[in-house]
Amino acid sequence: MPVLAIDVGGTSTRAAIVSTDGTCVGSARARAGNPTSSGADDAAAAIAEAALAAMAGAAVDPGDVAAGVVAIAGASGQVGAWLVTELARAGLPEQLTLEADLLAAFCSGSLAPAGYALIAGTGAAAIRVRNGRIEATADGLGWLLGDAGSGFWIGRRAVLAATRDLDDRGPPTALTDLLVAELGLIRSSGRGTDGRVPVLRQLVAVLYGLRPVELSRFAPLVFDAAAAGDDVATGIVGSAGDALAATLTAVLVPDIAGPIVLSGSIVSRQPAVAQRAVRSVLTAAEGVEVITVSDGLAGAAVLALRQVGVTVDDSILVRLHGSLPPPVADQA
Amino acid sequence: MPVLAIDVGGTSTRAAIVSTDGTCVGSARARAGNPTSSGADDAAAAIAEAALAAMAGAAVDPGDVAAGVVAIAGASGQVGAWLVTELARAGLPEQLTLEADLLAAFCSGSLAPAGYALIAGTGAAAIRVRNGRIEATADGLGWLLGDAGSGFWIGRRAVLAATRDLDDRGPPTALTDLLVAELGLIRSSGRGTDGRVPVLRQLVAVLYGLRPVELSRFAPLVFDAAAAGDDVATGIVGSAGDALAATLTAVLVPDIAGPIVLSGSIVSRQPAVAQRAVRSVLTAAEGVEVITVSDGLAGAAVLALRQVGVTVDDSILVRLHGSLPPPVADQA
Repeated sequence: MPVLAIDVGGTSTRAAIVSTDGTCVGSARARAGNPTSSGADDAAAAIAEAALAAMAGAAVDPGDVAAGVVAIAGASGQVGAWLVTELARAGLPEQLTLEADLLAAFCSGSLAPAGYALIAGTGAAAIRVRNGRIEATADGLGWLLGDAGSGFWIGRRAVLAATRDLDDRGPPTALTDLLVAELGLIRSSGRGTDGRVPVLRQLVAVLYGLRPVELSRFAPLVFDAAAAGDDVATGIVGSAGDALAATLTAVLVPDIAGPIVLSGSIVSRQPAVAQRAVRSVLTAAEGVEVITVSDGLAGAAVLALRQVGVTVDDSILVRLHGSLPPPVADQA
Repeated sequence: MPVLAIDVGGTSTRAAIVSTDGTCVGSARARAGNPTSSGADDAAAAIAEAALAAMAGAAVDPGDVAAGVVAIAGASGQVGAWLVTELARAGLPEQLTLEADLLAAFCSGSLAPAGYALIAGTGAAAIRVRNGRIEATADGLGWLLGDAGSGFWIGRRAVLAATRDLDDRGPPTALTDLLVAELGLIRSSGRGTDGRVPVLRQLVAVLYGLRPVELSRFAPLVFDAAAAGDDVATGIVGSAGDALAATLTAVLVPDIAGPIVLSGSIVSRQPAVAQRAVRSVLTAAEGVEVITVSDGLAGAAVLALRQVGVTVDDSILVRLHGSLPPPVADQA
């Protein structure tokens, strides 16, 4: 009997039906389903939609699913119990369990019983894994209190740099024109009654209309500007790498050397950030394996297969990565 | 005929009836009345409440008021016109005009036609004044995009320092215990399933339940910890001073030496921050006058008196400060 794997991300929810040899036989995606950012009912609906579509694609009934794992941020305690109840009500298998998205990301990259994962997409966190479970977590505290080095963190710094440029508190930067263009605004001449340039007032109005986490959409502007040689953007990229290095360092212990799994768009698609984030670790210990994965869907499948007694080996993991659909480009 | 002066702050709204010699003959206060943070109708109601109570205290009818000035953040354009209409509907004098709170703060401290004001309370901004009007503004962009060095900015750094301490990403700091105690939480032993200390999860739950600007309530913890010698807190205080120095520097021009008016709790009651904020200016030019005021109520009265043709001189300004009620301790 196959298993169900679900990865709930900040931008989309992905579900897959996986046979016991690691072959994906059906998959689907839906909108983001995080209860914290999307609201509880909407999150359950998004997760159920993706899961039911994946089952339909594989011609599998809920009763045919041997086990299911939902990889989701902050999965534990009361939120978890509540969500499982909601999902059962939506027609999903009752054997569904929730696992931390951070653990699923680790299992996407490594079958080792111990090691580390550093995840940086819309949010950012690091974990230490021992005996297949999370032993320590650093950051992952959300946009207001942490997520240092995340897409939100980088995107907010792009906006701060542009506004500092526009009111002469900071140096000129290419980020200003990139941000103005990204929002469809125009830099006109003249000054308002308060002496401000008009586009600054427009920026403020537009940006306060977004949910704060949506500032992560401006992170790509920083990478573009840094690639073109902009000093301010290069500084932000370096700071993000340093912040992620501090997060990873906080969970390191001497008796676990690695591997280190990197997941999420910021560390999986931005080598400059990834290298800076793991630099101190690689300097301290030779031969540490660094593995990059796009997300936690394969890891959710690994965890579900283990639940039904499958000894997941490298060939199964390779088959998972080969048969699961790739995440879309914008997925964190 | 007397004039009406209203200062709309982040924590309260104050109103005063002032005779043409600068004597306050009635005053009142109400809750915060900023349309952006409190909502438009609620803001108009708070402003009207304070104004009507001040008129009642002075036994003055709306028809007896020669002019009125409302000092409020971001006063200009459409928001201004709308608010004046709402206030007239609530029974306030029709001659009411809105002025930027930043200009009112300047006029609270100086009758000079040109100079600078640096305001740091819940928010933070600087202006350059020429010919009695604002010629340039820096920052004042709100909690998400700016207000560098403000009470929010400092309070958020207190929270970030405590959470970094609790998950080992940053150094130990006295701010952690101060924050935990301020919120009535307790640091218990043990670890959650994600390896986190329990109080960190509680902190996250409590702090995300606040409106972001409410983080400004933790700024006093930083000043307390810095006074007791905590390195992390001392660093935050220094950074706030540097950020405010950059904001002030952004509006400086060679042909206006000063004066510099400091207003708002962060620069009026924290000498370490204030000195650091103006240090570079005082180094660059000798004999620049630095004046500290608590808020913009006296300045609103100055602007209202000028509207009715009164030549406001030092004796009137002294009388204003002597007869206006002092702001409450927590007012930004």
